[in-house]
Order: sequence, then structure tokens, then C-alpha cells
Amino acid sequence: TTSATGKKSKMVVKLNEQERAEKLQPLLDVGWTLVDGRDAIYKQFVLKDFNQAFSFMTGVALLAEKINHHPEWFNCYNKINVTLSTHDVGGLSSQDIRMANYFEKQADLLK
Amino acid sequence: TTSATGKKSKMVVKLNEQERAEKLQPLLDVGWTLVDGRDAIYKQFVLKDFNQAFSFMTGVALLAEKINHHPEWFNCYNKINVTLSTHDVGGLSSQDIRMANYFEKQADLLK
Amino acid sequence: TTSATGKKSKMVVKLNEQERAEKLQPLLDVGWTLVDGRDAIYKQFVLKDFNQAFSFMTGVALLAEKINHHPEWFNCYNKINVTLSTHDVGGLSSQDIRMANYFEKQADLLK
Amino acid sequence: TTSATGKKSKMVVKLNEQERAEKLQPLLDVGWTLVDGRDAIYKQFVLKDFNQAFSFMTGVALLAEKINHHPEWFNCYNKINVTLSTHDVGGLSSQDIRMANYFEKQADLLK
Repeated sequence: TTSATGKKSKMVVKLNEQERAEKLQPLLDVGWTLVDGRDAIYKQFVLKDFNQAFSFMTGVALLAEKINHHPEWFNCYNKINVTLSTHDVGGLSSQDIRMANYFEKQADLLK
Repeated sequence: TTSATGKKSKMVVKLNEQERAEKLQPLLDVGWTLVDGRDAIYKQFVLKDFNQAFSFMTGVALLAEKINHHPEWFNCYNKINVTLSTHDVGGLSSQDIRMANYFEKQADLLK
Repeated sequence: TTSATGKKSKMVVKLNEQERAEKLQPLLDVGWTLVDGRDAIYKQFVLKDFNQAFSFMTGVALLAEKINHHPEWFNCYNKINVTLSTHDVGGLSSQDIRMANYFEKQADLLK
Repeated sequence: TTSATGKKSKMVVKLNEQERAEKLQPLLDVGWTLVDGRDAIYKQFVLKDFNQAFSFMTGVALLAEKINHHPEWFNCYNKINVTLSTHDVGGLSSQDIRMANYFEKQADLLK
């Protein structure tokens, strides 16, 4: 089925083993870590200053609203500590992978 | 049909006469005006200062990404001049009504 | 002395007893709490949704850059947990009072 | 004199001939144009999408509040049309140069 915005609808489910190998592992390889006691991932991003950090956060916020998937994040000046997990499925889903990849790509731009 | 985010899908189409009477007219009554030569609406919002204006714009931006419908807008300090129309249908649609109503509601809060 | 932007310059120093009685106490009365082991204040704000929370955060960010004083804050969907303290003076200063008052005023608007 | 935030205060004045040669000309060389009938400069920036455009605008907004100097700007999806001039001096000042250089640097990052 197709929504009004042209996006195909699909159920959000927990990542399976193959997806963890193919999509999660590359994130763990670039500094994301598994959170103790939760099926979630965490990374700290350090930007140049607050201007860059909050510009970055705004892009993340726009994506979060677009895909209806929001980070747990802490900011202090140029640092952003982000935890990603999908409440509805009780663990990591493709939504977290998409969000984490946005973080990586945008952080690379703003480096 | 229902998308991954739980929203029912529906085609975006131009407002019909009944919708113009019921949904567009109330906006014209609170200061939105029809744009000459285009099926579009325009309004200027004047906020307290730039802080309030850009906070406002951020909320609009978040909605814009969420519903994939973006305003044409001009900002100078505490003023926001916004024009709404739906490119894909060549005129006003329910997306513009939704966006205009967000502008009204949020501007009321920040007054 | 007066800066280019017309603001009078003044040294940022730790709040004295009189200022704590007159400016800090009213904040403690509306829900801010003193942080254990630090001269800092903390409050959680709960907004309507992420749109409102991040619009709010943007206004805070704009003030933070303007007065060069940045919060430590955590966000998850509609919640903002904020801790204020002034690193340069090792405790609470007038900058934290100003920031906290902005939080209060803006949260009232967005309620 | 030094303000509370450590910035030296200086009067904002119109750019003189030497400053126009040294600081304005490099901007004209990368696409900024002089506005007809005003001592102002203009440029259109085209970003990848709205996410990038509004992230960019947020960084500009943060700088604008920091230096108390605000752009006149129009946005439509991925395009930002910006006009810079300093109202208080009736023309271009060092504030506009600083703002234009931020636009250039940030646009380069987000390309």
C-alpha cells in the first residue's frame, strides 16, 4: 500500500539477525555501542561549537518528525549524546538504523 | 489503507467549493488573503522578536517535513510572510489548510 | 561600558545570598530543584509533543548563543530535562536566572 | 572595553572603500550581487533538500542572535534567498561581511 506522501507502508519490527549483521554492525564499527540492559545503541558526537551542534540537532529533529521516530538525546555545548531504540517494538528497528545513518552522514558534513 | 506511521493514506487534491466555504473561508476571516493570479493564500505574522519568530518557524518546519508540504516564506527579524499553495495540484489543498491552521494556532500561543 | 550591541558589560559572578533569596527562590517555588553535589538547578518540562518541545528548544538555543550561556539538557519526545549552572564561576550566576526565566516564560506560552 | 561575554565592543559603521575591496569583493566573486537601489548584497543558496536548508537556516539564526544582526531571507523547500544590509548604518557593514562569510562556509559544508 502507498500513503498520501508516496511512501510504501511497512510494519516496523525488531531487527533480525541478518539485518543486525548487515546494517547494525557497520554502525558499531564507527563508534556506536550497544546499551547495557536494553536493545538500544548509543554514540557521542562532538561538533565544532554550539552553533554546529544545534544546526545538526535541527536536521535530526526534522527527520525525527518526518519518520515519526525520535531520539533520546543529551546536549551540552558542542556535544550530543544520543541513544536510539524503538519503543513500539521494544528494541532496535530499521527506524533506528535510518536515524543513526543520518547522524553519521550529517556529522561527516559538519566535521 | 494505513501507513507505517498509522496515518490513513489519501490523495491530495484541490479544495472543492464546499471545502473552500468550510475550511478556507475561516482563514480568510482571520487575515489570510488570496494571492493574485495564483490559487494560493498569504498572511504576514508579526511576532515579539526574532527569538519568537524563529522558534515559530522551527515548529512550522517540523510540521512541513512531517506532512511533506513546505511553505514559501520570507522572514525579517520578527516578521514572517507566508504563502501557501500545493505545487502538485496547482492550487490550494487540504495540506495548505492544515499548514495555515498550524500557523494560526502557534501564533496565538506566542502572542 | 557599552558593547557594540548596546548591552552594558558586567562581570558574571556567583549569586550572593540576597540574589538567591530574591531571584533563585522564586524559581525553586515553581519547580526548579537544587542539584545534589553541584551549585546548579534542574527542572523537567513536559510539552504537548515533539513539535512544541523542539520549537521551545530552538528559542532556548537562540538565547543561549545570544548570552553565551548554554544549558545541559536532555530531550525525549515531549520532555526536556534541563540543568543550569555557570561553568566559569563554578556555580549559579545571573546567567542561569535569566535562562531559567526564559524557560518559565516560554513554557507558559506553549502550555 | 570588554563585555560580560568577553567580546570587545566596537561601533558598527558602513564599510569604507578599502574594506569593500578587501572583504566585499571576495563575496561578489563567489556569487553575491549588489542589490539595485540599496547598499545591500544578495545571494541564492540551493541545498540538497528542506532538511539541509532549514538546518542551515538554524545555524544562521543562531549567529544572527549572537551578533544581533538578522538577515532578510526567503525560503522555498531547498532554496534560501538572502539579502544582507545593516539597517542602523543604512548600508553594508562588517556585520554583513561576517554573516555572508558564515553563509559561504556553512553552505560549503552542507554541499
